[in-house]
Amino acid sequence: MVTEGVVSVTGLIAHGRGEAFDYLLGERTTPEAEAAEMAAAALLVLSERPIITVNGNAAALAVKELGELSRISDAMLEVNLFHRSDERMEKVCAFVEAGSGEQVLGRIQDGILEGIASDRARCCRAGLMAADVVLIPLEDGDRAEAMVRVGKKIISIDLNPLSRTSQAATVAVVDELTRALPNISAWVGKLRKDPQEAGRVLKNFDNRKNLTSVLDRICHDLREPSSD
Amino acid sequence: MVTEGVVSVTGLIAHGRGEAFDYLLGERTTPEAEAAEMAAAALLVLSERPIITVNGNAAALAVKELGELSRISDAMLEVNLFHRSDERMEKVCAFVEAGSGEQVLGRIQDGILEGIASDRARCCRAGLMAADVVLIPLEDGDRAEAMVRVGKKIISIDLNPLSRTSQAATVAVVDELTRALPNISAWVGKLRKDPQEAGRVLKNFDNRKNLTSVLDRICHDLREPSSD
Repeated sequence: MVTEGVVSVTGLIAHGRGEAFDYLLGERTTPEAEAAEMAAAALLVLSERPIITVNGNAAALAVKELGELSRISDAMLEVNLFHRSDERMEKVCAFVEAGSGEQVLGRIQDGILEGIASDRARCCRAGLMAADVVLIPLEDGDRAEAMVRVGKKIISIDLNPLSRTSQAATVAVVDELTRALPNISAWVGKLRKDPQEAGRVLKNFDNRKNLTSVLDRICHDLREPSSD
Repeated sequence: MVTEGVVSVTGLIAHGRGEAFDYLLGERTTPEAEAAEMAAAALLVLSERPIITVNGNAAALAVKELGELSRISDAMLEVNLFHRSDERMEKVCAFVEAGSGEQVLGRIQDGILEGIASDRARCCRAGLMAADVVLIPLEDGDRAEAMVRVGKKIISIDLNPLSRTSQAATVAVVDELTRALPNISAWVGKLRKDPQEAGRVLKNFDNRKNLTSVLDRICHDLREPSSD
């Protein structure tokens, strides 16, 4: 994957950081993750114009699952790279299209997300710029916070419950990507038949409380590893 | 570093895992780490024949500091690679010799550490095989446990307090490598003038208690991040 140019060197290090948090969570979908995945699905179902951003790590880990969520939620995939070059952008777009079976946005970036350094700010006007709800798997904190500042509702998928991305999100899913995405897709399948139920799910979800509960769970398991 | 062949792809991911734990520890030398570094120095001072093993990640992160500890503790450096080839071994040995200023062992591996898969079992008879105390920065659990089984006293440097390496060690230093090594060197400088004091330090150190205290600290900081 590295030599193919999909994942960057810093992407590998970031993957390792995720692995450590997943280890602390017991490498499973916790009840808090399940609740967030249901709320994420509700937000997608109730959105006017959702979009799913895809970077190199997300593509390498879960290209098929991203395609499935894209189809069931009518959200396009938009490739956004932290370490961007025209060559790498083309490589990742082609990789995601081949793996997901979906046409992706990203080759032409005619929009700017305000408030962050220029290279990472680039996006598609008809994609991320116009979206009301953005699902951001494995996104960095600067971009997540910038999206929130311009009024987007954000669904993050990030194994670190303390990351700026998780903290800034409307719905922070603290779960491993290949477990989270199929679960969100399944909930979208159920909730899109019942938008009122989706509204209730969303109303009852408190992101701050849910993240606090994740931290309590990590600490409990750290102190009593045998209770697993 | 990756293209130079010193660090492997899995080494980068492992580095990321370490970063996550360092983040949970507040990216500082905790009081527990300080106690372990003092005990590590005491163990080195009281050893008959200490050795310091060096893998690709340790070399990339702290080659100078490894050289300094080698000189002050009269412990040779022995290169041991998880992903081994003759070419990579020569590269890493040359890299460590240039950076540390010390001759290293590892080019000729005429010993076998029993109880682990053959490639990772290789070591030097006059080095690791003959040592009574082995300092293992960033070592994997299989090798750490194998060394303990053949009677070595182990000093680990590993940011994960729950890793099999930390759990197996005689003295587990849970600290970042470039903070830990100079601190151990400083303690060796002090304690080698007073072996009796070194004996007292070692007698008072309880590895299990110290690791439990590290976990308590992580949990406390997770629940009350504002108390920092």
